Amino acid sequence: MTRSPLAPAQFPMLPMINGVRFSAVEAGVRYKGRKDVMLAHLVEGTTVAGVFTKSSTRAAPVLDCQAKLGGDSSSAAAFIVNSGNANAFTGSNGQDATSAVTQAVAATLDLPESRVFMASTGVIGEALPHSKITAKLADLRDTLSAGKIQSAAEAIMTTDTFPKGAGATFDADQGPINIMGFAKGSGMIAPDMATMLVYIFTDAAVAQDDLQSILSDLTQDSFNAITVDSDTSTSDSLLMAATGTSGVHVSAEDPAFRKALYEVMLDLAHQVVCDGEGATKFVEINVTGAASQSEARQIGMSIANSPLVKTAIAGEDPNWGRIVMAVGKSGAHADRDKLSIHFGDILVAEKGWVSPDYTESDGAAYMKNDHLSITVEVGVGQASDTVWTCDLTHGYITINADYRS
Amino acid sequence: MTRSPLAPAQFPMLPMINGVRFSAVEAGVRYKGRKDVMLAHLVEGTTVAGVFTKSSTRAAPVLDCQAKLGGDSSSAAAFIVNSGNANAFTGSNGQDATSAVTQAVAATLDLPESRVFMASTGVIGEALPHSKITAKLADLRDTLSAGKIQSAAEAIMTTDTFPKGAGATFDADQGPINIMGFAKGSGMIAPDMATMLVYIFTDAAVAQDDLQSILSDLTQDSFNAITVDSDTSTSDSLLMAATGTSGVHVSAEDPAFRKALYEVMLDLAHQVVCDGEGATKFVEINVTGAASQSEARQIGMSIANSPLVKTAIAGEDPNWGRIVMAVGKSGAHADRDKLSIHFGDILVAEKGWVSPDYTESDGAAYMKNDHLSITVEVGVGQASDTVWTCDLTHGYITINADYRS
Repeated sequence: MTRSPLAPAQFPMLPMINGVRFSAVEAGVRYKGRKDVMLAHLVEGTTVAGVFTKSSTRAAPVLDCQAKLGGDSSSAAAFIVNSGNANAFTGSNGQDATSAVTQAVAATLDLPESRVFMASTGVIGEALPHSKITAKLADLRDTLSAGKIQSAAEAIMTTDTFPKGAGATFDADQGPINIMGFAKGSGMIAPDMATMLVYIFTDAAVAQDDLQSILSDLTQDSFNAITVDSDTSTSDSLLMAATGTSGVHVSAEDPAFRKALYEVMLDLAHQVVCDGEGATKFVEINVTGAASQSEARQIGMSIANSPLVKTAIAGEDPNWGRIVMAVGKSGAHADRDKLSIHFGDILVAEKGWVSPDYTESDGAAYMKNDHLSITVEVGVGQASDTVWTCDLTHGYITINADYRS
Repeated sequence: MTRSPLAPAQFPMLPMINGVRFSAVEAGVRYKGRKDVMLAHLVEGTTVAGVFTKSSTRAAPVLDCQAKLGGDSSSAAAFIVNSGNANAFTGSNGQDATSAVTQAVAATLDLPESRVFMASTGVIGEALPHSKITAKLADLRDTLSAGKIQSAAEAIMTTDTFPKGAGATFDADQGPINIMGFAKGSGMIAPDMATMLVYIFTDAAVAQDDLQSILSDLTQDSFNAITVDSDTSTSDSLLMAATGTSGVHVSAEDPAFRKALYEVMLDLAHQVVCDGEGATKFVEINVTGAASQSEARQIGMSIANSPLVKTAIAGEDPNWGRIVMAVGKSGAHADRDKLSIHFGDILVAEKGWVSPDYTESDGAAYMKNDHLSITVEVGVGQASDTVWTCDLTHGYITINADYRS
């Protein structure tokens, strides 16, 4: 798979988190010649929060994680993740395979099974060959190290063309706090090889309830504000661990912590968009003047998911008419004659018609950028929102029409 | 544009409707060397009903038609339609252009302006050159004829690769009734060159209220049950005219009339899907065992609009996992472990896992058909529904990424 043209030049330097160690191995779950299982070991007292897909057909490991959240945090904990097989739509076999792995991880690391959080990503409908994973657990335990972040990020990739990492360090009143995370995903998309998984770690001390509240809040404007193709996976999972090893306590309302964490989450979310299947353009869609926050999101997502808007962007066509169409079909309050549209700083349309100063050549020149900003002023209220997406290209069709064959 | 591989061999023989005459001319609205304006003249007493796009950014002629429905039916009436320019998102200019044309049609044909129903389809955001249309009205009037149905159907085409017509004749208790119609559209799609327009005519005598009630009802399971790409146009319009010239009266509940009309509407709706941009497969999606009728539709449309399902179909990949994903994201009640899926007569998955008798080679052989049927038994209730769609191919990207450039 060719590296996305929107990929960053390299994996970033990330802060190590005291109390978190990683390892990764080749277990041969499906892929050959690459690492496909990742283990994260978390020190005693680490609080864990999570956000998961709302799909009614979600996979066994997702249900297992959801059941375990909110339990006692006193002992050590672990995240175990495999790529190549999603263990989704595998009947009762799915829960059995999840239990086999989490029990073995608990035994190998000497911690309670209720503290082992598993995720699987890859093809669906095939039984997970769990013994290939459990056979490697001793190796994984014996090679744990705080610095193996990139290796862990690579082990969870499926159709991703680059590993995605982000980090932040800031000074709280009591001392410095580090946050670091990594993600996989070529979109919110595809049950069979491209679900989204995200792992974030901090050395701040955050109560479990507070951590959950912060994570759920910030997800709304980061991972829930991106779309590649409107398809939602059966396995999307975001887990965050707070080790407390910095000794710095953080409350649910702490503005500096929320700001730093949001930056890490947004950076990872944007990298997922940049690795959208076939993507050649990264697109920010700003909606202002909507009747409510939820209608601003509704309009933004209607534009971001429109195949006609996304193909126009792929063709570098400043086709603002398709944006009008997407606003119109969104179901949100709008008035054709109050709409205005900007491409970057260029006023394209206002008051229900093309702007008198706009020229097609200005629009066409702007569309050649690989990072685009589209702003729709709805003109019916005060609410605003921003979402991010990519274009829809021949590359997407090639990847998804030919994937399993 | 290459003719769709799913196109019928030829335009069908359609019954002429007493009291309805057509003409078509080259007015040069945008296209060169082809007819682009169609006039239908309707005899005194013809009742007219309509169903229109719900877009909040709908075009001026749509708003004008909606305002005129339900008025007095005693005088003659006319439908005037141009292709090449949708007269959408053109500010106050849009209403002025619509009025200029409808006034001129009324004067030329000597009938009230309130009985002139206009539609425009084509590029949006550009002023409609209405004088090119009005300059041809005398020609249009002087060449009206009951037999020019195919010519009228061709004049309203934009990205369509074939004209779409359907008809039915049946014996009511009082005597024979004829129904005939034509449509344009390469989907529900595209504000700029592929909106859907449908015109249906009958010689039955149907009160305006009854006609509206029948048409609205039957639209739900025909034109509202198809999708090419989930994008809804600013101009979608369906108009139906009942001349009463057969002398046979029909009520809102008449089962034979409803059956015959529904067949015509469904035939036209299926032809629109068959001319979906880039389509190579026609796909029927049946949902059974859903919690309610509206949830059955919700699941059907979630599958029909999923880019991952549609690209798998394009690739002839029996990727039932993507169907599970689309059910899961639909928001409707579903239980992963109660779902079953058929491709045609082949049981693919049941009880949350692949069927023991299913083989990938059976699935792959079935997917090579150009007409496909996918059935999802949700297993949580008794409601069912059917929707129709096409695949998502490189052809769609080529048409829509390169259209205006």
